[in-house]
This record gives sequence, C-alpha cells and structure tokens, in this order.
Amino acid sequence: MMNPRVSIIMGSVSDLPVLQKAATILNDFEIPFEMHALSAHRTPAEVEGFAKNAQSRGLEVIIAAAGMAAHLPGVIASMTTLPVIGLPVNSTLDGIDALLAIVQMPPGIPVATVGINAAGNAALLAIQILALKDEAVQKKLSAYKADLKDKIVKANQELADVKYPFKTN
Amino acid sequence: MMNPRVSIIMGSVSDLPVLQKAATILNDFEIPFEMHALSAHRTPAEVEGFAKNAQSRGLEVIIAAAGMAAHLPGVIASMTTLPVIGLPVNSTLDGIDALLAIVQMPPGIPVATVGINAAGNAALLAIQILALKDEAVQKKLSAYKADLKDKIVKANQELADVKYPFKTN
Amino acid sequence: MMNPRVSIIMGSVSDLPVLQKAATILNDFEIPFEMHALSAHRTPAEVEGFAKNAQSRGLEVIIAAAGMAAHLPGVIASMTTLPVIGLPVNSTLDGIDALLAIVQMPPGIPVATVGINAAGNAALLAIQILALKDEAVQKKLSAYKADLKDKIVKANQELADVKYPFKTN
Amino acid sequence: MMNPRVSIIMGSVSDLPVLQKAATILNDFEIPFEMHALSAHRTPAEVEGFAKNAQSRGLEVIIAAAGMAAHLPGVIASMTTLPVIGLPVNSTLDGIDALLAIVQMPPGIPVATVGINAAGNAALLAIQILALKDEAVQKKLSAYKADLKDKIVKANQELADVKYPFKTN
Amino acid sequence: MMNPRVSIIMGSVSDLPVLQKAATILNDFEIPFEMHALSAHRTPAEVEGFAKNAQSRGLEVIIAAAGMAAHLPGVIASMTTLPVIGLPVNSTLDGIDALLAIVQMPPGIPVATVGINAAGNAALLAIQILALKDEAVQKKLSAYKADLKDKIVKANQELADVKYPFKTN
Amino acid sequence: MMNPRVSIIMGSVSDLPVLQKAATILNDFEIPFEMHALSAHRTPAEVEGFAKNAQSRGLEVIIAAAGMAAHLPGVIASMTTLPVIGLPVNSTLDGIDALLAIVQMPPGIPVATVGINAAGNAALLAIQILALKDEAVQKKLSAYKADLKDKIVKANQELADVKYPFKTN
Amino acid sequence: MMNPRVSIIMGSVSDLPVLQKAATILNDFEIPFEMHALSAHRTPAEVEGFAKNAQSRGLEVIIAAAGMAAHLPGVIASMTTLPVIGLPVNSTLDGIDALLAIVQMPPGIPVATVGINAAGNAALLAIQILALKDEAVQKKLSAYKADLKDKIVKANQELADVKYPFKTN
Amino acid sequence: MMNPRVSIIMGSVSDLPVLQKAATILNDFEIPFEMHALSAHRTPAEVEGFAKNAQSRGLEVIIAAAGMAAHLPGVIASMTTLPVIGLPVNSTLDGIDALLAIVQMPPGIPVATVGINAAGNAALLAIQILALKDEAVQKKLSAYKADLKDKIVKANQELADVKYPFKTN
Repeated sequence: MMNPRVSIIMGSVSDLPVLQKAATILNDFEIPFEMHALSAHRTPAEVEGFAKNAQSRGLEVIIAAAGMAAHLPGVIASMTTLPVIGLPVNSTLDGIDALLAIVQMPPGIPVATVGINAAGNAALLAIQILALKDEAVQKKLSAYKADLKDKIVKANQELADVKYPFKTN
Repeated sequence: MMNPRVSIIMGSVSDLPVLQKAATILNDFEIPFEMHALSAHRTPAEVEGFAKNAQSRGLEVIIAAAGMAAHLPGVIASMTTLPVIGLPVNSTLDGIDALLAIVQMPPGIPVATVGINAAGNAALLAIQILALKDEAVQKKLSAYKADLKDKIVKANQELADVKYPFKTN
Repeated sequence: MMNPRVSIIMGSVSDLPVLQKAATILNDFEIPFEMHALSAHRTPAEVEGFAKNAQSRGLEVIIAAAGMAAHLPGVIASMTTLPVIGLPVNSTLDGIDALLAIVQMPPGIPVATVGINAAGNAALLAIQILALKDEAVQKKLSAYKADLKDKIVKANQELADVKYPFKTN
Repeated sequence: MMNPRVSIIMGSVSDLPVLQKAATILNDFEIPFEMHALSAHRTPAEVEGFAKNAQSRGLEVIIAAAGMAAHLPGVIASMTTLPVIGLPVNSTLDGIDALLAIVQMPPGIPVATVGINAAGNAALLAIQILALKDEAVQKKLSAYKADLKDKIVKANQELADVKYPFKTN
Repeated sequence: MMNPRVSIIMGSVSDLPVLQKAATILNDFEIPFEMHALSAHRTPAEVEGFAKNAQSRGLEVIIAAAGMAAHLPGVIASMTTLPVIGLPVNSTLDGIDALLAIVQMPPGIPVATVGINAAGNAALLAIQILALKDEAVQKKLSAYKADLKDKIVKANQELADVKYPFKTN
Repeated sequence: MMNPRVSIIMGSVSDLPVLQKAATILNDFEIPFEMHALSAHRTPAEVEGFAKNAQSRGLEVIIAAAGMAAHLPGVIASMTTLPVIGLPVNSTLDGIDALLAIVQMPPGIPVATVGINAAGNAALLAIQILALKDEAVQKKLSAYKADLKDKIVKANQELADVKYPFKTN
Repeated sequence: MMNPRVSIIMGSVSDLPVLQKAATILNDFEIPFEMHALSAHRTPAEVEGFAKNAQSRGLEVIIAAAGMAAHLPGVIASMTTLPVIGLPVNSTLDGIDALLAIVQMPPGIPVATVGINAAGNAALLAIQILALKDEAVQKKLSAYKADLKDKIVKANQELADVKYPFKTN
Repeated sequence: MMNPRVSIIMGSVSDLPVLQKAATILNDFEIPFEMHALSAHRTPAEVEGFAKNAQSRGLEVIIAAAGMAAHLPGVIASMTTLPVIGLPVNSTLDGIDALLAIVQMPPGIPVATVGINAAGNAALLAIQILALKDEAVQKKLSAYKADLKDKIVKANQELADVKYPFKTN
C-alpha cells in the first residue's frame, strides 16, 4: 500500500465539505494522502502523537484546517519540523478570527497560511513543495498551471455571447 | 426545592434560542439553575435588585448574555463580587459589537467573556468554577472532557468513508 | 512554604510589564501565586506537564497571557478542568488578533477572557473565583470594590478645580 | 447661582483633557453647566442618583463620555428621559470599542452619539438642542456657524502662500 | 392642518422599510411629522432648500437616514442649526461604512448618531428632544419608558415555560 | 466597425453578473466598449499583452474588476499610462479584502477605485473621463445627472402613499 | 496667466502637509493647478459655487482631500460632471473612516478614490486623465513611469551592500 | 561560487530593516540566498524575468515581501511553480491591507503567507521546505527548534527575580 505523503487534518466534521477540494486535487495529482480528524483542544494527546511521528511515518507536508480560535495548525507546527499549511475555515466572523489565529504565529514557529476556505490552494501549495524533489509531480504541476488558462478562455467565450449594440467584441 | 447555583440572565426573548445550550449543559451536570430576563436599560432597578441579592440567595456564578451595545454583564458585575460570565450574542455586525462591549471592561470590574453565541462554553466555564469546591461536579467534568473525544472519533469514521484512489486511510 | 493558588503563565519575557499589575493585585489580596514562562509553541511538553499537574499541585485558577495568534490559554484549558483566564496581550494589530485567538474557543473548552492588556482584571477575576470558597478573600474583595469609588471621588475633586465662569460646580 | 442646564459626566480623570473642549464651548455660549465624575461600574448607585434626579434639578441635556466597553451613556439614558449625548473616548482599539458600545443601543433607549473624542461636537449638539427653546442661544449658534467659515478663509490664505511655478493662485 | 415638528429624510426608496418604525413611533406619540426623499448627491439643491428652510417652517428635529458613504445627515447638519439625528442604514459592509460616514463628523457640525438601522431609537431621540419643551410629550415618554418593562415581563413568562429537571424557576 | 474606447476586464466568469450594469450604462451612452476575461494570476502574459497594447489600440479607459486579493487593476495599471478604474468585487469578507487590495496602491501607480460591486459607477467614471474631450458624451452625461432626480421624485411619490394620522404630507 | 487644469481642494489646513506631494508632482509635470480650502460642512455655499463653475472655468480634473466622515469629494462630485479624485486623509481610525466615506458612493455619483494619504497618486491619476488629450503630458508620463524603475535600481544597489557569508549577491 | 537556494524579494528599500531577520536566519542555517528589489508595479518585466527563470537558476523557495496593496508575492507565484512565501509588511492600516492582499489569493495560485512583519518565520518556513530533501538542514532545524526553549528558560529566570511576599517561586 502507498505511504501517504500529505496529511489533511481537520478539527471537526463540519470542515469536511470545505476540505473535499483539497482531497480532489491531491488525488488528481496522484499524491498519496490521508485524512484525519484531530482537535488541538479535545484530543491534544492524539495531536501530539500525530505531529511527533509525522516525519518518521514518511509524511512530507501537513495541511491543518481549523475555524474560530484556530489553534490546530500552530500546535502541530510546534511539534514537527515538517512544513504545516494552515487553512482558516469560515465559521464565525467571516473567518477573520481563524485567519488571524493561524497566520500571526510567534517567532520560531511559522505556519504557511492560505486564504479563508481555500482548500484547493492548500493542496496546490503542498504539491508545489513536493514537486521540489519529484520531477513527475513538477511536470503535472506545470500542466495544471497551463490548464488554469482554460477557465479564462471559457469565460471569454461566455463574454462573447453578451451582446450590446455598442459592444465591439 | 433546590437552591439555584447558577443564574442565566438575558436581556431579551430573542436570545433564548442561543441560551438553550447553556441550560441543557447545566441540566446534564445536575446543577440547579434559574433563568431570568432582565435588561440593563429597560429594567435597571430589577438588575440592581438581582445583582445585589445574588450572593445572599446562594448563587455562585452568573451567566449574562447580551447583544449589540451589550451592557448587561458589566452592569451586573459592577454590583456583585460573584464571577460574571459574559456571553456576546450576535444580532448585528456579526456580534463583534457585543464582544467588545462585554470584554473591554475598565479596571476593577472584570467580566469572564466567552465566544460569540458560545452558550455551551459559558455553562462549562460556570461548571469549572463550581467544580473547584464540589468533587461530584469535578468528576462529571472530567468525564465530560473525556467524552469530547467521541466527536473526533465519529469524525474519523466519517472520514474513513471518504474514498479516493490515492487516499491511504 | 505557601502552596500557590493561582498560576500566572506567560509565553514571553516581553509580556512581563503587562503582567506586573496582576502580580501586584494578587499580592495585595495575599493570594499565594506563582509566575512561569511557558510557550504553547516552543515548549509544548512543558505546557502539557504544567496543565496536567495543575490541579493536583493545588492550583485553583490559571491566568494565561499571550499575544498575536495567542494559543496558550486555549491549549492549557484543553488539558485541565481548572478555570483558565485568558489575557490578550497587544503586540500587533492593537491586540485584536490575540483577543479573537483567545475568546473564540470551540465548543467544550471555554477560556474566561478579559480585555486587551487587562492584567489587573485577570487577577481580580481569579480572586472572585477563589472568594466563592474563602470568606477572608470575599471580605477583602468587598472592601476593594468599595475602594474603587475613591478614584471617582478624587476625580470629582480634580473636576472641582476646573474653573469656567459658567461652570456651576 | 445659576442652575446648570448641561451636565458633563465622565467615568475617569483620564478623560478630562478630551472633555475640556466641551467645557470651553459651553462656556463660550454662556450655558451654565456642571462636570462630574461618575462610573457606571464603580459607582452605580451615584449614577442612578444622578440620572433619576437630573430632570427635576433642571438639567436639560447630559453629555456622557466613556472609553473601552463604554456603558456610562447607555446606563444614564436608561434612567432618564432627558436626551443623553454619548462621547466615545479613545483609550484602546482607536476608540472603535467605545463607539460601538455607545451607539449600538437596544430598542427603546437611544444615545445621541458623536465622533470619537469629539467633545466639541458633543457640546455643540447640546447647544443645538437648547437653542430650540432659547432664542438667545439660537442667535449665538447662528453666529458660531457663520464663524466656522473663518477657519477656511485662513486656510485659503495659507494656501496662497504655497508657491509653485505652475500654481495659478 | 398640523405643522410637522419632525422631518424624516431618506436618500432612497430602499430605506423605507427600515424607516417605518420611526414613523410608527412618532405617530404613536402624536407628533406631527413629514417624510421626504432627498439625496445629498442626486438632488443637492433640494437638500439645500430643505435644510435652509427647515427652521422657519417650524421643524424642530430632523431625522436623516442613509447607507454606504452616508453624507445626507452631515450635509443637512451643515445647513441648519436644528439638531440632526443620523441613522446609518445597512446596505453594504454590515452598515459599518454608513455608521462611520455619519458619526465621524468634523469639528463644528455634530450629527446625533443612533445605531445601525435603529429607526425606532432615532424617533425616540427626536421625541426626547421635543419633550424638553412639551410637557404632554414628556408624560407620554415616561409612560413609554415604563412600558418597556413589559417586554421583559413577557420574556420572563416565556422563560418560566422552559422546563428542565434542574431548573429552579 | 467601431473602435472600443473602454475595455471592461474581469478575472472570472463569476464577476459577470456584477459587471452587466457597467455594460448597460456604457451602451446607453453609446460608448463603444469591449469585455474580456483576463487573470493577473492565471494569464499574466495575456494581461501584459493587453495592457501594453491598450493605448495603441485606441482604448482610453480600462475598467478592471477583481475580488479577494484583487491584483488585476494594479497589475494592468503598472503596464499602461491609461487611467485604470478598479472595481472591487465582493466574494469574501464583504469585499473589504478586494477594496484594500485595489485602492492601497504604492506610490507611482494609481488605480481609480470605486465602491464594492459598484459597476455602474465604474462605467460612469469612465464616461466622465471620456466626456472631457467629447462634447456629445458631455451632453448625455449632463442629461443623465439630471435624470438621477427622477428616482427621488418617484421615492417621494411612494412616501406620499405612506399614511399615518400624524403624518402631514 | 495660465488657466488651471487641476484643482486641489482640501477641507482643512491640517491636510496641507499631505497634499504637498500632489502639488509637487503637478508642478513637475508643468500642469497649471490651483489649491483651495473648502469645507462641505462649513462652507457649503462656496463648495457649490466652486463645483458648479468648475467646468466653465476650464478645470478638467478635481482632487478633493478629506478625513474622518469625508464628504467633500462626494459632495463636489454631485455638482459637476468633471471627474473627481477622492483622497482619504488619515486623521482618525488609521483613515479607514475616510476611505469608506469617500469610496462607497451611491449609484450615479462615482468618486475615483486613491489610497489613504496617497496624494502623489491622486496627482498622477489626474495627469493620466489629462494625458488622454494632451500628447506632451503623455510623453512626460511615459518618462515618469520609466523613471520609477530607478528607485528599484537604487534599492538593488543598497541590497548589494548587505553582506552575509551565505549571501550570493 | 554558491548557487542561491532561496531568493528574498522586496518591492522597496523601506522593507530592508524588516527583512534583515530573514537574511540572518538563512545565513545562520548556511543556506545560500540572494536578495533583490523588484516591484510588481514599477518593474513588471523584471519580475517576470525573475519568476520565469527562478527554477532553472536552481532556486527552490522564494520569499516575497510587500506592503499596502501587496501584489508582489501573488504576481511571482503566478509565473513559477516554486513555492512562494508571502510576507506582509506593515506600512499602513497596521499591515492588515498587506495581509489580505497576499493571503486571499484566487484558486490555483497559492501563496504561503506568514504573519505581518514576520521575516524570521518566512525564512524558517523556507528552511523547513528545504529540509525535506536535505538532511543536514533538517538536523540544524531540529537543533534550532530545541534552542527555542532557551528563551523560555531565560524568561523563567527573569520571572524568578520578580519578588512579592505572596509569590511562591
């Protein structure tokens, strides 16, 4: 069986819908990954066990999602030297509480924070890190970036269908 | 009849749905409690009567919920030496007005503030305070904290059902 | 030697000036207390050791101060059933990041949050909790609350010295 | 001796410098006024005594200044039918906490809120209210409004002294 | 026909539902009032005509409601010495833009600001100002304030119906 | 065929509904315009091509709409000397992120920013700029401004239908 | 004498230091300009006179600076069809009140808003608009944009002087 | 000569003091690095040249610092598949504008954002990423994390010197 390279950690079932996008992208890139529910506050021992063994289990990047006073990414980051990607989840105050509670880490313990609910970007950042030592991933990533234009091309086609007498395209 | 140990005070009927969670938790812990509607602005004399007699009536902790320019917790705190737990209720501006109006108390009159709409946490904080002198409550509290893990276990089971070819757990 | 009843925990030397006010007030109330520097992120094992032994060591209330993505109060609260008072310290963004990272705790793990840099109020809240089972403390607390008026009396005297022809007092 | 028509209430000596501007303007308009220090939290009984007797003492408008979780204006407003002008004082968070804690009053108890630290405007608003039934005040007010232009005229003269080759005035 | 004592000004039809509450309360107090739509930006001349003639038409208080970059209350206040009550209307950004654009007036031109969408409070503030020279209004106002308790009494009755085994009231 | 004078650029299909208002107004003013989807992040080369050729293609004003970390207007502005109108689109955080990411440009590269989702105002601002050298457009603009009053007139008619016994108009 | 093409309007002397940068840049571009102090609230008649005559006097762009509840740009924009550039000045709340009060204009009356205190960018935006019909200005503008790189070149030279053993440039 | 593995990019000389901490840490870890000044807005062509060649030049991680409407990290991220660490620099609005303009990236283009002015954490995050394929760096990183405790030990010693009669440690 494959060894997971990326671990997606969430503190609550309610974050699952937000995180599906991360799972889908990792899957599309054929990156073995795992998903776990762990809470910095409800299961601190399990978090510690997970974080301390992450590197020896072969994990390379950890994505940690949390909302409100979002401590999970920072707590995991304090117990491993693997890069930890923090994903603020919007449950109150438009997610600004989660964003600040994740990104404003004290000196010595960085968390690589992405945008509020931006699970896809969390996965892509993990993939960009993996690609540094994995040419196959690097190639897929370049292809992915190229494909990003397609959305714009499609958008342009939709725009072409918007008709006004004084619209020239 | 039981003497109430905790009093839940709200300024408006509209806060009742938010506060049910506090009542349920106090009930589950078998803590005698009371619920009252009192308004710092509409019934100041009743608030004063309540606050000044709270200790002699045997109350030990007061939970005061309020929204907007939320003065109720601070006003009660100014008239008693019992610990007052302030619960900001979201009715406008995502509740940030209520949070600031409760937590930013002047020197000398603290209010123990919990999160926006976090009625369950207000009740648990009251229970943690009661547990300091009540071993039976302390035991239930330890059991409750242990049970918090169950949600995470259940979340992990749900995560196990999320299938992707490259998901390894 | 006295057993400490209150523990003041801070994550950084730089928070010491803010916390002196808490120490002074606890001292004035003759409450035995201790002060420790512990970091949720830099010394997670020490935090765990502290939190798990706090109750058996005879501590009754914990005051935890932190700035920025302030995880310390919540992490300690997750590992003890003692009441934890969270004190947001202003180091960036006027302290709003620390306030949100402390107060917006998830269900099950409350932190009794006081105002930004309000160390004196953190100590008074601890004292109000201790007073519930300690009549001597309760008496001092009532005296303290009475003394709070003195500041206002002094303010009124200063105001009397402000002279304008149309000022009537 | 003159009966005061306006009462300036502040919760703390530290607000005095901000409030001098209000006193100066009331004096310039020859409106008899008084200044008192009263705290919604430290001297609630005195606040109640003040508010309940305000009207029978002949007061017509109350200016109440407060910072942080600024409850003073709202608490006074709850105990009188006189118009209460709320003045948010900046002591933390740029004064946004005081502004929200004053202006976001619940239905039934309005506070006429002016800008952060805007003591002069608080006095002018009081004067505008008094002018409704006092022609002498009304005349001075019209003159005052006319004089406001003078600042602009002076500003224009200063601007005339700013020289650039391509500046045409 | 009655002469209006209060004028309710709004910048847009869309503010009408918010303002109905103000009209209802003024009507209940039997205060003659008028309602007009005027825009500081779309009909500046009409605003000027209104503001400059307000006093001579017998108006005593003006309520001006506006959303977004809400200039209407301030612009009217600059052209009259009547007290102007500013009512921030929530159309974007939860109404915080309107609140700041109304309350943060420059020195010399106060606007008596009430809470976001708080049309009822705007009307009551107008009534409190009118009551200063109108004993009949004053009496109704005292009765109204007394009636505010009824809501709380009703709330208490609803709370009495909330049953838990450990609830003592 | 007409040469477009204004170009409307958006980063995503999802912004199209917001931008229809801009297209409608440009059409009503008979200003030839074009609409394109270009992304500062997904198609940087196309953005560069567009911006560098904009002036030589005869374009006079560019409207660039973007949400979240909205870089598109600033990036285009950095590559042309045509005036660029930035339109913040609300997709997260009420649009405050997009507003700040567009308006707070560094020295040397201004973006003419309009309100959140204010596509109609973006078009009108473009038209005001074109009117400086186009008398026909200037005349239509003056007529448009005059017509803005009609909304107010209609609002006044609706207000006339709101009946209360004490309403005098 | 030269006819001014740009008018810089400020509401208060205190904004002069911020606006010097705008004057310097207009002067460097040899654009005839004028500077006036006008207040939307203190001199509304003068504002109206200025705005209504601006176009016939030959002005092409207006820069209006204001702080706090910054109405000046919007009020001018409501009375002219010339493009109005709004410059939020930081006097309170870090300038966020001025920014929102300027940029969040209602439909029909756009203000071209630049960053807080960004007077230089206000001038450059005015110049970009003038350049549309003035080839000489256009040429200077292209040269200016090219010169912007010089700062970066100088920065790179400073960076070259920063020495570390492991720094490779 | 060494090939740089990390590139530190800043948009302005004024960011140099903030970034020294990043250079010092990279140097301490003996990671070859380079520092460049590049502006997304003033030198877009140079940014493009840098970003497109970064990978082929052997760079592995890019740290991009920017303030205000901080586009630099996102623009670089759009032109490379290397991980880009975004460092918001506080120049206005306490840095919240820079934070939002960096972290809230659209789908497809993540930026690994660290706290406001947190240059040391930016460097450590780069080092954590490099450590994934470099055991020597990994060892130093583990040692560094261990050393982080020293600050806390030192803090504890300072706390031991704070003496109060009722302090028990």
